[in-house]
Amino acid sequence: MNHQRTLRVDYDQIARVTCVVGSDLNVNLNRSAPPTSRFFSVKCTSSVQYSISPAPLLPSHLAPMRLEERSVLLIRMSQASQLENDGKLSIWYYGGSQEVLGKAILHLTAIEISLDVDADRDGVVERNNANKASWTWGPKGHGAVLLVNCDTERRYRKKPDSECEQITERSDLKDMSLMVLRTRGPAKLPDGYKLTMHISQGDAERVRVFKTRSAMNTGNMLKEVFCKYFEREFPLVLNSEVLTQEVPYLGKTAEMNFYVEGLRFPDKDFDGFIRIHLSLLEPISTGLPETPIFTDTVVFRVAPWIMTPNTLRPSEVFVCSTTDNYHFLKSMKELVASSGYKLTVCHAYMNRGDRWMQDELEFGYIDSPHHRFPVVLDSPRDGDLMDFPYDELLGPDFGYVTRLAEKKDVSSLDSFGNLEVSPPVTVNGRDFPLGRIIIGVQEPIALFSDWLYVGHVDEFLSFVPAPDRKGFRLLLASPDAGYKLFRGLLNDGHGQAKLFEGLKDEEQVSVEEILNDEGLRAENNYVQSCIDWNRDVLKRELGLDEEDIIDLPILFKLVTDKNEELKALAYYPDMVNMIVLGRNLGIPKPFGPRVNGRCALEAEMCSLLEALDLRCTFINDFASYHKLLGEVHCGSNVRREPFDFKWWNLEM
Amino acid sequence: MNHQRTLRVDYDQIARVTCVVGSDLNVNLNRSAPPTSRFFSVKCTSSVQYSISPAPLLPSHLAPMRLEERSVLLIRMSQASQLENDGKLSIWYYGGSQEVLGKAILHLTAIEISLDVDADRDGVVERNNANKASWTWGPKGHGAVLLVNCDTERRYRKKPDSECEQITERSDLKDMSLMVLRTRGPAKLPDGYKLTMHISQGDAERVRVFKTRSAMNTGNMLKEVFCKYFEREFPLVLNSEVLTQEVPYLGKTAEMNFYVEGLRFPDKDFDGFIRIHLSLLEPISTGLPETPIFTDTVVFRVAPWIMTPNTLRPSEVFVCSTTDNYHFLKSMKELVASSGYKLTVCHAYMNRGDRWMQDELEFGYIDSPHHRFPVVLDSPRDGDLMDFPYDELLGPDFGYVTRLAEKKDVSSLDSFGNLEVSPPVTVNGRDFPLGRIIIGVQEPIALFSDWLYVGHVDEFLSFVPAPDRKGFRLLLASPDAGYKLFRGLLNDGHGQAKLFEGLKDEEQVSVEEILNDEGLRAENNYVQSCIDWNRDVLKRELGLDEEDIIDLPILFKLVTDKNEELKALAYYPDMVNMIVLGRNLGIPKPFGPRVNGRCALEAEMCSLLEALDLRCTFINDFASYHKLLGEVHCGSNVRREPFDFKWWNLEM
Repeated sequence: MNHQRTLRVDYDQIARVTCVVGSDLNVNLNRSAPPTSRFFSVKCTSSVQYSISPAPLLPSHLAPMRLEERSVLLIRMSQASQLENDGKLSIWYYGGSQEVLGKAILHLTAIEISLDVDADRDGVVERNNANKASWTWGPKGHGAVLLVNCDTERRYRKKPDSECEQITERSDLKDMSLMVLRTRGPAKLPDGYKLTMHISQGDAERVRVFKTRSAMNTGNMLKEVFCKYFEREFPLVLNSEVLTQEVPYLGKTAEMNFYVEGLRFPDKDFDGFIRIHLSLLEPISTGLPETPIFTDTVVFRVAPWIMTPNTLRPSEVFVCSTTDNYHFLKSMKELVASSGYKLTVCHAYMNRGDRWMQDELEFGYIDSPHHRFPVVLDSPRDGDLMDFPYDELLGPDFGYVTRLAEKKDVSSLDSFGNLEVSPPVTVNGRDFPLGRIIIGVQEPIALFSDWLYVGHVDEFLSFVPAPDRKGFRLLLASPDAGYKLFRGLLNDGHGQAKLFEGLKDEEQVSVEEILNDEGLRAENNYVQSCIDWNRDVLKRELGLDEEDIIDLPILFKLVTDKNEELKALAYYPDMVNMIVLGRNLGIPKPFGPRVNGRCALEAEMCSLLEALDLRCTFINDFASYHKLLGEVHCGSNVRREPFDFKWWNLEM
Repeated sequence: MNHQRTLRVDYDQIARVTCVVGSDLNVNLNRSAPPTSRFFSVKCTSSVQYSISPAPLLPSHLAPMRLEERSVLLIRMSQASQLENDGKLSIWYYGGSQEVLGKAILHLTAIEISLDVDADRDGVVERNNANKASWTWGPKGHGAVLLVNCDTERRYRKKPDSECEQITERSDLKDMSLMVLRTRGPAKLPDGYKLTMHISQGDAERVRVFKTRSAMNTGNMLKEVFCKYFEREFPLVLNSEVLTQEVPYLGKTAEMNFYVEGLRFPDKDFDGFIRIHLSLLEPISTGLPETPIFTDTVVFRVAPWIMTPNTLRPSEVFVCSTTDNYHFLKSMKELVASSGYKLTVCHAYMNRGDRWMQDELEFGYIDSPHHRFPVVLDSPRDGDLMDFPYDELLGPDFGYVTRLAEKKDVSSLDSFGNLEVSPPVTVNGRDFPLGRIIIGVQEPIALFSDWLYVGHVDEFLSFVPAPDRKGFRLLLASPDAGYKLFRGLLNDGHGQAKLFEGLKDEEQVSVEEILNDEGLRAENNYVQSCIDWNRDVLKRELGLDEEDIIDLPILFKLVTDKNEELKALAYYPDMVNMIVLGRNLGIPKPFGPRVNGRCALEAEMCSLLEALDLRCTFINDFASYHKLLGEVHCGSNVRREPFDFKWWNLEM
């Protein structure tokens, strides 16, 4: 954008004027003309360009032209000056008989100034991008990206780097966005001129800006140095206490690197945009403040936290070790090892018996054109596992973010078993290439989950990859599918086959007994209605067809909660609450009725899922999870690879 | 949008199903078919429509069709039922040799339900607008509008109606948005079904919903009734304590009126949208909770507060009476009377000597298709005038809103002399038909104003109506224009003419003395630079040309403030700080040098402004305002007529 600056000119004086290449100086010729002036003319050296408005009748500007009420002279210099005052321009004023009444002389110094960012999102800071002050979505969009520096470079006495006022390690620089101040002009600024970088109070609460010491030779740095060294090498320029600071003009053709560090994620009171300004200040008189004559602005958008669906490739599986889950842990280790991923066990001293790894945290990542890293979102739940995300996960290139609950009364609905994300979908022509967040009770896709005793969406839904259609299937718990399976068993003469065989302390129940239990049937009708309501919402909000959904044979029962309300729990291990590791599924072992030596529920699951080239492993979580009201998914978590799709390429 | 609902059907049972006209029931035929079913057929009465997917090969549905894995039956009723269960549909299931295995029978009751609002913005609630659940800008846009009920119906012990939990006067209803629940169907809902209205916790903090008692005959109401009566007549349905409430189904063809009351203005943490839902709940079994089977949603946007520029027609002028401003008040009364507007004087007992009417409050209005009224925005300044907006202005159809400062240290920049709005402008093709807000120091159009001792934008700019060009001129204080005028006077031999003649206790100064004061000239160069910076911003942000700006001859001087910084004050009364009453301007009397018996500054102002058909009245505010660092504009305020342009017609 071509900025115009009003320039006042006094006759019979030599004005020394500094201008910025690309800006126009706008001189109101009549404003400071000698009284009774009627004509004027303009002369200048070749480095200066000018135009006159209204356009004069005569082609030559050397002959006196009529001075109109609104005569304006536009002056521009298209190249930086080599020396101070190397551009000259004079305006001559004449009276009614073209006698000279006075002349104004300008000595002009032109400077190139550009505050630069990676506005074209290729990971490199380009020169003076015309779009650097705005931000648009999409593959043809533009605008720089900023990461919240929520990892830590320190391994001891650590805290997120965003809570540390200094740069402590060179590696910290890559978590920040590079911003380059490029200048060109004479060896020094004309006397009294200054460059300042500045920011609004609101934006300054959300970023810090550091700079490199001007003379630093980045090639020769030692890698291991102490904190104090970096404070000197990367001094703070702007933060919430320092909203404006002078920055040096290095002279001739120069570049100075700045590093912008994001501190806050976009939220309901923060749209994610940060604006940083660089101004050239002009001195007026000794003892008076300077005034800004040119301001260059860049904008960043802080990258959002992105959650990863089951269809993304796993990187690392997390599970707790407790005094009573040896067999579960062994099965999980085998499954993860055979799937080829890394298993990380959270040990008892850290989890203090809290095994619900799914509920305490959610894995995601943040991404920018120059860098990305995983970020754990710590739930407001804060059970005994609460220290794990911070103490064990936060580290170099592993970020941490949390939301504290507004009120003291955190409920089970705040646990992250209740927070899921769908695979990428297209709904009524609108693409959601990063999937859609699914959460019980509240927006965005609000599902109805408080009919459940625990209340988490992962008790009735999961997503698995599929080779066809939309690339995935939605799995839903379905009492109807369960009853249909059991009625089929009865018809085929297996009514006496028993559930819960081989489990000590667990009363066995036959297929026929289940089918004859009218109360249980009524309870499951209710549960099916609740799941159907969610099914209709999911079909609509995710654009799913019936063929995209698989109903899993799972029965529920109702129990009375602490408010004396009836809520649902899985009758046998809730097979939809599974861990998805690529094509390998770790499914709670249902202990269903055995027919010809094989569990009929396992056989049905294999039949439904192997058709999608998925491999089912049934994991016995009965005593150590199911009886404690959770299953495999509740008791594990998976860090996954980021999407190939870049969030800034969303078409909004 | 056509909603589909999953319906489970059991064979060998009669299912009584209630459906909503316009929704489809989606029956997965395979899901609850008898085991070994291979074929099916469908029959129904004429009030029921259905389709089968995948489409059967045979045209007749009476002959058995093959039951596919994904066979789906879509059922729909296009008219409300007269009687319960008056629609019938049966599904027959057959085995491999087409022997009957079972049949499912549906008895259907159809109900029309529509929660209605004025989504087409004509002031009338239409029937079931297809767009009622979304909101778009522009003349072709749609979406209902809600007012913040910030006026009061009470004249004694008053407070804004939004702070009162009940409706106390019939007149209060017009400040709310009407919402109508329209139902059609049998005389009562089938057993166990319920209608509930519900809202999210977040939205419920920002609205209340009342309803009329169902049997109320609105024609026969007495006008004067007591509070308790209205509590009974207009019971509360939803507020922040009651997020869901059952609402009655009246039977046959019925309408029930609801009144939605806005409580909060859109703000940085509130986008202005409110969603209200109405659900039909279905019973499952005795003792179990109901589940929702249909939800209708409407959306409102809360109307923003809109500020009125100088170019709008005045309604009422406000000014303070103090012990020392008798002459000023008399001049203002004469000006306002001759202009034909109403003058309201804030008396000494209320203003307690605080005369800065401009700084304590700003007038604006809120507007909806059904109602609008003026709203005073009370500044966080809270000087001795602080009680005036609430005690004197708040009233029936006169709203009140305030923002308390976040921190204790409210500064002069928070006074509303620093808050102005431009007339409507078009900038680079973008229309701002309601003008643009202008505020010193901060966004939206951020001007640079803290070079001033008081720091308000009204110390250097004003807008006046004009018959040509953009319909207005921007007036700017201009030391250069002042010096040019004084130099002309000197050249014409009036160097000895004196400023401040006729003012006792004020030292007179001649034109020549002013021109010889080098320090004063340097100070004014600085001030001119500061104003020029703002001039460049205003030209760019308001799309102004030089011809849209008039420079007024005003000099400043610098004084030291409490932080030992040099700040600017007007040298003689700051003529740009004027009151604009249509074509009549009330301008601070400048006490400039007299030439041929006339003040040269007044003559110049008249010459500049009378060319625009404006009439200048010079008001002596020297002792009672100028010496206290303010002028006419600071000491007055004007309530103006709203724009004809409706804010929801903005093209965003």
